[in-house]
Amino acid sequence: MNRQELINLINKKQSFLCVGLDSDITKIPQHLLKEEDPVFEFNKSIIEATLPFAVAYKPNLAFYESNGIKGLISLKKTIEYLANKRQECFMIADAKRGDIGNTSKQYAKAMFSKEGDFDFDAITIAPYMGKDSVMPFLDFPNKWVILLALTSNEGASDFQYIEDRNGTALFERVLSVSQQWNTSKENLMFVCGATKAEKFTDIRKIAPEHFLLVPGVGAQGGSLKEVCKYGLNKDCGLLVNSSRGIIFADTSEDFDKVAKEKARQIQEEMSLYLKNI
Amino acid sequence: MNRQELINLINKKQSFLCVGLDSDITKIPQHLLKEEDPVFEFNKSIIEATLPFAVAYKPNLAFYESNGIKGLISLKKTIEYLANKRQECFMIADAKRGDIGNTSKQYAKAMFSKEGDFDFDAITIAPYMGKDSVMPFLDFPNKWVILLALTSNEGASDFQYIEDRNGTALFERVLSVSQQWNTSKENLMFVCGATKAEKFTDIRKIAPEHFLLVPGVGAQGGSLKEVCKYGLNKDCGLLVNSSRGIIFADTSEDFDKVAKEKARQIQEEMSLYLKNI
Repeated sequence: MNRQELINLINKKQSFLCVGLDSDITKIPQHLLKEEDPVFEFNKSIIEATLPFAVAYKPNLAFYESNGIKGLISLKKTIEYLANKRQECFMIADAKRGDIGNTSKQYAKAMFSKEGDFDFDAITIAPYMGKDSVMPFLDFPNKWVILLALTSNEGASDFQYIEDRNGTALFERVLSVSQQWNTSKENLMFVCGATKAEKFTDIRKIAPEHFLLVPGVGAQGGSLKEVCKYGLNKDCGLLVNSSRGIIFADTSEDFDKVAKEKARQIQEEMSLYLKNI
Repeated sequence: MNRQELINLINKKQSFLCVGLDSDITKIPQHLLKEEDPVFEFNKSIIEATLPFAVAYKPNLAFYESNGIKGLISLKKTIEYLANKRQECFMIADAKRGDIGNTSKQYAKAMFSKEGDFDFDAITIAPYMGKDSVMPFLDFPNKWVILLALTSNEGASDFQYIEDRNGTALFERVLSVSQQWNTSKENLMFVCGATKAEKFTDIRKIAPEHFLLVPGVGAQGGSLKEVCKYGLNKDCGLLVNSSRGIIFADTSEDFDKVAKEKARQIQEEMSLYLKNI
């Protein structure tokens, strides 16, 4: 999915909600455990319920890898299921990969090709290893890198806020340097956590047009209103993720209905903010 | 495998060689492609041939993930095969993972438990997300985190050398700050690339006792002699990796004999350096 198609989808659904499929098998509704592939059945129901209100899905690979090969088969089935709706949603591999060039090339093949069994639109990448760890992903047309800039966790302060001699914080350098790598707003997004919404002012100075993937709203304490106040741009420019707040809002047999209602509430709030851009 | 067992193994084999299993299916000997699982057959032969001369094996997960579920089954079989020799080698998942706490906990389960289908001794981690992205891995007894400090690729210069107001480079901060995280030389190593051997003097000032995993010798241009000159400590303190220089040294039916000879040559050189510590 390219940038214009994503913007069109946001306008059509009046939503920039990304649903995080952190589908922890120990947290899904008990009644699904009797199914042959409980995680896939769970994802399918969540997707069916939330698709009218969400523009993106973001499986977190850790929650599949932790179930071994079986978990990755659940993920493969989920991606195939989503691929049938690919005009309706943007598919993000939350994988936090990144390695030297010849290795990143293999990760790109893993996430962006049929040989790798997954066919995501985008992947999250850690920037520590620099340019050649990022570029191989962009050799795939219409695929995206979502580079970690400012994350939503406590450990973000260990390195991301460190300032150089000119007062530029590491996350600010990631935002600016990566734009010099023969990338563009057509294939590069940034992860910017919602827990420090006021930082979006600084972020928008450096990356006014890029899409930002925003985790941390909901369970991690970030405010959607604040994020939108400082982060929205004329094309929207945000994908705001909610995982636990939607998918585990209820664990009864009605979990999908409750997830739908939670997604609908967020979409409704988002539609108000979209009116003002 | 704990630190003392690793040191004992190094002393016994007079080697600190780590063989990188970057087992790219497009580069393995052609005659293996007729096997049911060519990558596993390749790994088995390489391990059999090099085990007398190597103390560690490091499958690079990208090269398995790029073959999809099938690739991960090859990896699972490789790890099970290695696990039968676990007194004889240290097993490293070269995975460059790292995410917020609840997600890193899942990655730890993926790499360090039977549920996750893999039972590695150690995993490589990118430090960008800080303390809570690292600690969940250390909840597993006798398992190790190998944190990226200074990598061997060109992109290392994009962020790792950036100095703060006091002249401390980011990689130096990673080395020092991570030692304050309730870690120890018993469960934390660092990745330090061989391509800038003189940097090992600075690294050893900050981390005199920790083991360092050193990629970049061989195909990437680093010198074993230089790395040892500046990097060895009284317990050895190094695991030097070679991937392509051993596993793809030959692609005929004699590939394993050539790999064995390459590993033997490196071990012989290493044994000389070990005499002087």
